[in-house]
Amino acid sequence: MITLSHQRHELRLRHTFRLARGASDTRTNLFVELEHEGLVGLGEAAPIERYGQDWTSAAKAVEEMVARLAEPTVDPRAFDSAAELAAVRGQPAAEAAIDMALRDLAGKRLGAPYYELLGLDPRSMPVTSFTIGMDTPEVVEAKVREAAEFAVLKVKMGSDEDRGVLETVRGVTDRPVRVDANEGWTFEDALERLEWLHEMGVELVEQPLPADQLEATRELRHISPLPLFADESVHRSAEVPRLAEAFDGINIKLTKCGGMGEALRMISVARAHGLQIMLGCMIESSLAVTAAAHLAPLVDHVDLDGNLLISNDPFVGAAVEEGRLVLPRDPGLGVHRSETGFGRA
Amino acid sequence: MITLSHQRHELRLRHTFRLARGASDTRTNLFVELEHEGLVGLGEAAPIERYGQDWTSAAKAVEEMVARLAEPTVDPRAFDSAAELAAVRGQPAAEAAIDMALRDLAGKRLGAPYYELLGLDPRSMPVTSFTIGMDTPEVVEAKVREAAEFAVLKVKMGSDEDRGVLETVRGVTDRPVRVDANEGWTFEDALERLEWLHEMGVELVEQPLPADQLEATRELRHISPLPLFADESVHRSAEVPRLAEAFDGINIKLTKCGGMGEALRMISVARAHGLQIMLGCMIESSLAVTAAAHLAPLVDHVDLDGNLLISNDPFVGAAVEEGRLVLPRDPGLGVHRSETGFGRA
Repeated sequence: MITLSHQRHELRLRHTFRLARGASDTRTNLFVELEHEGLVGLGEAAPIERYGQDWTSAAKAVEEMVARLAEPTVDPRAFDSAAELAAVRGQPAAEAAIDMALRDLAGKRLGAPYYELLGLDPRSMPVTSFTIGMDTPEVVEAKVREAAEFAVLKVKMGSDEDRGVLETVRGVTDRPVRVDANEGWTFEDALERLEWLHEMGVELVEQPLPADQLEATRELRHISPLPLFADESVHRSAEVPRLAEAFDGINIKLTKCGGMGEALRMISVARAHGLQIMLGCMIESSLAVTAAAHLAPLVDHVDLDGNLLISNDPFVGAAVEEGRLVLPRDPGLGVHRSETGFGRA
Repeated sequence: MITLSHQRHELRLRHTFRLARGASDTRTNLFVELEHEGLVGLGEAAPIERYGQDWTSAAKAVEEMVARLAEPTVDPRAFDSAAELAAVRGQPAAEAAIDMALRDLAGKRLGAPYYELLGLDPRSMPVTSFTIGMDTPEVVEAKVREAAEFAVLKVKMGSDEDRGVLETVRGVTDRPVRVDANEGWTFEDALERLEWLHEMGVELVEQPLPADQLEATRELRHISPLPLFADESVHRSAEVPRLAEAFDGINIKLTKCGGMGEALRMISVARAHGLQIMLGCMIESSLAVTAAAHLAPLVDHVDLDGNLLISNDPFVGAAVEEGRLVLPRDPGLGVHRSETGFGRA
């Protein structure tokens, strides 16, 4: 018998988070507990409004999925097959929560951290970048100084202030910088910005053009002095082949693709197409960030800092040491409730 | 400390095995034992002469790989990372043996059958086909009758006798038949044969044209009434994208791709390209066949009968029940020495 409980939790952001698409101070994610054979597996859904999800749609979807997992023909121990069978399409954040909880359960049942089931070496973690949201020069400067332990910064762009933001960052540090435009540029914007981003030592640019402009992105790639990474343009593994010529790499997020199983498949497909791989996240607690971190030995770039941007993280999981995520060694995902848990921090 | 022992073993075929490329009565495979932390992992290399491998080159390669695994920076428990680091390119059969032994060790260490580490449901196994080699009508007829418990037959073709062979088979049974041409046809042969193969109820055709005729195969696919599967045309995951338009499916073999890790990657890439997947084998003992069988819940078609074609199988592993492979439940690959083992049967 497999049983589910779930609750929403409002994550509070340390700083107002500004993207090309808007700003926010909080985010409501859904947290699930799957109980099976006396063990509890933990999962988190970070629903993306843009794709028609919120915590209520995620709650409905996880309930539906667990009803399927409880059917006698389904064995939740066969987590990969079971997650596939139970999936509710169109609700990838909820899918990711269930997939993650099933893998947490499997690791706990076998008494091993999940990365051991994959045969990955937790010592080979790429450095993680730290995200600097769009803000006034003063705040940007303060954020960059706060992020001193991170070897790579990711700067959000997509406004008329782009050049000013990067100049502010460069005034404080010469660390490697990646830029995320979040679909915020036109083709002409991108052409112009890529030139000076390149001159100012930026490493790569994420999602310069809107997701539906694949042909234009392909053109842009031919003339871009910097590698282009897909984020909003790519969700699941089946989409990777058709965008392989428009991008140099892809950003994989559990909440976008539906979980760790699909993320693993995307990694294989991206590699076969010679694409670089970044592992990213949304605003998420240490639970979802740690789940993604279990796959980090397989990727080139890590951008798993969602938990560092919030002030009331209900979980403790992967820690950051010298700019790299350190995976916990406890069984499963190795994540535990923080002192405050779901209480008010 | 990880230590290796290996020995060759001559597998004796029940019937002389005839393909488009030649005939044989025996096959010499290399068997490895990896000892680590008091446990023993088993692996088998089935070297393919056509690709410049034999048991001596495999023996040299496994020794080199284990020397790398023994380096202090490598952790053999991280089997996926370790297999990748240790791989000797150009010797995929040896790579597969080491990869398999490392996964066997991991399952034994965690006390679980390897399929549990992948989260697969051993109840969802496709039926396996049984191979009928090229032979005289009398022998073909006898083989088909012997194969009564198999729901699907795979008939080897690539000679002037092709039509006669299939007519003989169809004289005995109306079971589904797949055809493997092993690169034995010209474009004109293929055109003519595909027509009557289709009329005689054949399901699919493997490798109709030589591996280097990808463009011709693409043309053939457009007019073929039957799905075409790649075998000799595909080895590793990175090759899958470029042949996705020339074939409807691929045949994955551990000894061709370098092991279970790469096979898993190929499955993901093939799925992303909408290709069907067959899991195949060479003439192999129950060890390598069982290793492949652990991945069978992920594929569409299973052709894992190499162990059934030999008379002195040194191992016992997956059994066949009602035409389907049944995975053993013991930890790791779940394979044990047979009564005769490496002695003379």
